[in-house]
Amino acid sequence: MNFEDYATYKEISTQTIAWSQAIEIVKSTTLPDLKNYQNAIFVGCGSTYYLSIATAALFQTSTGLQSRAVPGSELLFNPQFVLSKNSDGKLNRTLLVAISRSGTTTETLRAVENFKKMNCGEVVVISNYYEKLSHLADISIVIPEGQEVSVAQTRSFSSMYVASAMFCARISNQDEMVKRFSELPAIGNRLIRDFEETARKMGEDQSFESFFFLGSNFNYGLACELSLKFKEMTLTHSEPFHFLEFRHGPMSMANGKVGIIGLVSESNFQNEMKVVEEMKQLGAQLFTIGETGTDISLNSQLPEYVRGVLFLPVIQLMAFFRSIKKGLNPDNPKNLTAVVELNL
Amino acid sequence: MNFEDYATYKEISTQTIAWSQAIEIVKSTTLPDLKNYQNAIFVGCGSTYYLSIATAALFQTSTGLQSRAVPGSELLFNPQFVLSKNSDGKLNRTLLVAISRSGTTTETLRAVENFKKMNCGEVVVISNYYEKLSHLADISIVIPEGQEVSVAQTRSFSSMYVASAMFCARISNQDEMVKRFSELPAIGNRLIRDFEETARKMGEDQSFESFFFLGSNFNYGLACELSLKFKEMTLTHSEPFHFLEFRHGPMSMANGKVGIIGLVSESNFQNEMKVVEEMKQLGAQLFTIGETGTDISLNSQLPEYVRGVLFLPVIQLMAFFRSIKKGLNPDNPKNLTAVVELNL
Repeated sequence: MNFEDYATYKEISTQTIAWSQAIEIVKSTTLPDLKNYQNAIFVGCGSTYYLSIATAALFQTSTGLQSRAVPGSELLFNPQFVLSKNSDGKLNRTLLVAISRSGTTTETLRAVENFKKMNCGEVVVISNYYEKLSHLADISIVIPEGQEVSVAQTRSFSSMYVASAMFCARISNQDEMVKRFSELPAIGNRLIRDFEETARKMGEDQSFESFFFLGSNFNYGLACELSLKFKEMTLTHSEPFHFLEFRHGPMSMANGKVGIIGLVSESNFQNEMKVVEEMKQLGAQLFTIGETGTDISLNSQLPEYVRGVLFLPVIQLMAFFRSIKKGLNPDNPKNLTAVVELNL
Repeated sequence: MNFEDYATYKEISTQTIAWSQAIEIVKSTTLPDLKNYQNAIFVGCGSTYYLSIATAALFQTSTGLQSRAVPGSELLFNPQFVLSKNSDGKLNRTLLVAISRSGTTTETLRAVENFKKMNCGEVVVISNYYEKLSHLADISIVIPEGQEVSVAQTRSFSSMYVASAMFCARISNQDEMVKRFSELPAIGNRLIRDFEETARKMGEDQSFESFFFLGSNFNYGLACELSLKFKEMTLTHSEPFHFLEFRHGPMSMANGKVGIIGLVSESNFQNEMKVVEEMKQLGAQLFTIGETGTDISLNSQLPEYVRGVLFLPVIQLMAFFRSIKKGLNPDNPKNLTAVVELNL
């Protein structure tokens, strides 16, 4: 079977079509009025929880509004830990952003239903399907081009991430920034073309026994997602950390069979690269990706805020090639189904 | 060398002395006036970041105030992602709770120094030493009995967690709950005595190749901390997840060599145990700990809010025994030092 015969390979390689669609759709999306809100909550499950983590960071940084990401199950089962109150004891006005590839994920769906009964704010839904979740939305952003045959999310995640990031830029009136999103698909295509071979070499390198993914701020949620790809597609131990957190315990695991993939930022480049250098000293194999001065350099000239999605395709390809090399089927990871629907 | 000769063993076995001291100290701690605040931020590094996660959940649940935990490095390097603004564009009034065993952790210290310059709220410090960090505090809670010789935190963590939980109960005027904390040390001693043998058997079982720790709400931060113990002391792959999140991808890793340790709550017992049952079906070895109906039952009769610390000692002992069995030195984990001080 050729690489091209796997759905995962096709979905990764052509994902920028879905980015373009996301950009077109978010250009004209209705926006909620932030004056009505004291905070924003982002919910999802698995990949879309990690997407929520990344987006909450973008949202708070751009709007200033207190923003938090939680798993759908926490909003559903422990709402008192998610929804906050003002000094009168009333629920704060909360903008809820619910993210789900299928639009049918049970926890997210049930959590949104409960949230609506509380009458404390609108619901924005980001999904790849017009489904049950979108029907509950006050504002619905659906990107059908992100739909996938594979179980593990790749183009779905990146399409919804582009939509989320541009939504944050628009809602904070950063008009110059908003325009720059249209440059992403061409740069994404260039990276996929130029670094597929790098991804294959690294993915096929069986000397790695486990991986850690480092990223801070916006990039932490992306590190979580890429770590999950390695679990799902390659059945390899992998775990995400904030860069400087890795020094506080986890680095006990650093050795020659450990690959550490760093999603390096521009704003804290030196502090993050210092961690990278220290882990090299401990014998770990480091691989960095960032705008410039890294093993893979994006050279996007885009603001940090816009370019996050560019971290994804090459590392997704790495997971794909590792999966094949290990004799696994990347399209159908062990134990998993594409949609988790429960009888709660 | 006997178990008793290891500092870690002594520190775990006698930790309830430090809990008692924490309870005594927090009884008379000055409390900030919550009316002055729009939100609370909890910061720490490594273990104390996980302690912050657990405490932020307790704090928001009991006070209703929006509460979030972040690593010290995020507050230091990406404050715009941590500190939020109101609709006038001014920083929200923020209660900052900074937690550090040594009181000298560089990121936390520097982050608190910067925070104070912003004049947007008081600083509460929880530590085991009167050190630099306490000198910056408006309110300082220091528990010297939690001090340790070992690198990996055990009694230090639990003593500061008891202090944090009781602080949350006091600040939310839950007087009946506050009284119940004094029951913890006796119950902790009973658990350590009754379940040391269980911990030894499980810790010495070399059929486990990796571990996952499941916990939701308050218990998620504790799951993170216990997972870190297994990395530090036993150099074993381990990772924490919220219960229902484990279904969304990570369960691809479930097999007969995987141990899954569930910190089961009372409030969501059925939903959490359903995940446990499913993972058993996939062949994983499950081990549950909870108030009742679990492999280890606490039988504490204490409110869920108060009893969290009781999850810790037996699992800490498990990590200790696994470390010894693997021929490692639990007192001095590979690559680590007790205090992380950086030249930032």
